[in-house]
Amino acid sequence: MNPVIETIRGHRSIRSFEERPLTTEQMDTIIASGIAASSSSLLQTVSIIRVTDQEKRRVLAELAGNQSYVASAAEFLVFCIDYQRHASLNPDVQLEHTELTLIGAIDAGIMAQNCLLAAESMGLGGVYIGGLRNAPKEVDELLGLPQYTAILFGMCLGYPAQDPELKPRLSPEVIVHENCYQPLDLAMITEYDQQMEKYYQQRSSNTKQQAWSDQVTTKLSKEQRPYIRDYLNSKGLAKK
Amino acid sequence: MNPVIETIRGHRSIRSFEERPLTTEQMDTIIASGIAASSSSLLQTVSIIRVTDQEKRRVLAELAGNQSYVASAAEFLVFCIDYQRHASLNPDVQLEHTELTLIGAIDAGIMAQNCLLAAESMGLGGVYIGGLRNAPKEVDELLGLPQYTAILFGMCLGYPAQDPELKPRLSPEVIVHENCYQPLDLAMITEYDQQMEKYYQQRSSNTKQQAWSDQVTTKLSKEQRPYIRDYLNSKGLAKK
Repeated sequence: MNPVIETIRGHRSIRSFEERPLTTEQMDTIIASGIAASSSSLLQTVSIIRVTDQEKRRVLAELAGNQSYVASAAEFLVFCIDYQRHASLNPDVQLEHTELTLIGAIDAGIMAQNCLLAAESMGLGGVYIGGLRNAPKEVDELLGLPQYTAILFGMCLGYPAQDPELKPRLSPEVIVHENCYQPLDLAMITEYDQQMEKYYQQRSSNTKQQAWSDQVTTKLSKEQRPYIRDYLNSKGLAKK
Repeated sequence: MNPVIETIRGHRSIRSFEERPLTTEQMDTIIASGIAASSSSLLQTVSIIRVTDQEKRRVLAELAGNQSYVASAAEFLVFCIDYQRHASLNPDVQLEHTELTLIGAIDAGIMAQNCLLAAESMGLGGVYIGGLRNAPKEVDELLGLPQYTAILFGMCLGYPAQDPELKPRLSPEVIVHENCYQPLDLAMITEYDQQMEKYYQQRSSNTKQQAWSDQVTTKLSKEQRPYIRDYLNSKGLAKK
């Protein structure tokens, strides 16, 4: 295993951090790594808001569902779709199609993963914060986002103060299909459920009794953030 | 620069490949790297269709706007949103909210970037193929995607038969905002336009006379894939 694959496969989300700041050089490297990512038609549709203001960090932690590490991590980045840039270069651009929001979301994922891996390769850790979408309008206002921009997710970064186990994932046989979509093999889910139950029971903190299939279908049986479409529309995005 | 950051910052899209297959071990490593990525609430909403059928590859190359490397690359992967998995575990799941499509798109970007970097770290190269969204229904039918799944993008992988220059990107000063969104500094775009004009004039193949701001605003002045919302809706996604 080369160092890149070792870093990629060694990923654990880190939610507890040392009180140690990142250097300017580390941050520059993380950002340059994000910017080096592929960009659909070179549109470059992502902006990053780096939140250094402690009061804003405290409010964001609360809005994200009381995730204290949003306030305590050395760094907190908010990844946003940004077509305001293009609109300010030329008011004739047409930005309301779902396609453009899709591009922004995919490209933000690609860019953010470069940032996270760069950080992890330097001995840092981090975690994605989708919880910002619990209160998109409030987060948006706090960060002063103009029309044609929208928040997607946050990322905490810092020196890890925990060393969690690797979390098991669905097997390649479930994820990868050859030439044609294959229906779910329920025996494989049963096997994965057993693996996850064991993982949740035995992990070093926050143990629980739960199988994966129950966990995800219980979650998805409730409406997931039904206000996201309205939020995007209010920013001039995903309107049609 | 450590090897991870070197790989990340050395990225160029590769569109010309040697006629040399990847080994099973290489493919296993690439897929395992993708699966190791973060997954929102561990929903694991992404499936990969690995297309090995040469006739399907030929059709996909055509549908993607005659991108011949879709057929000629050693490997071609199609990244899809997949909530069919969850629906087949429990029919009570609610999948129509835009939030879930957003999660699928972000998580597919994160996973795919792990795959691409793993490949690049092994001396391979690749390119994202958003062009599959030129004909989403046709691609979807060709790959037999059921309800609650949708294609997002493809990825070519193989041994590079070209060595293109690094493509300049917008500077960190444009991409990163501190605490609050900052309006675009037009002087920085002028500078970047000059840099891109020089790059397009001087690169080793496919030279052209173009500035970035013209390129992207001309593109965005036309409707971008206006049928994407209908396609997603037809799969039971992003309906509200």
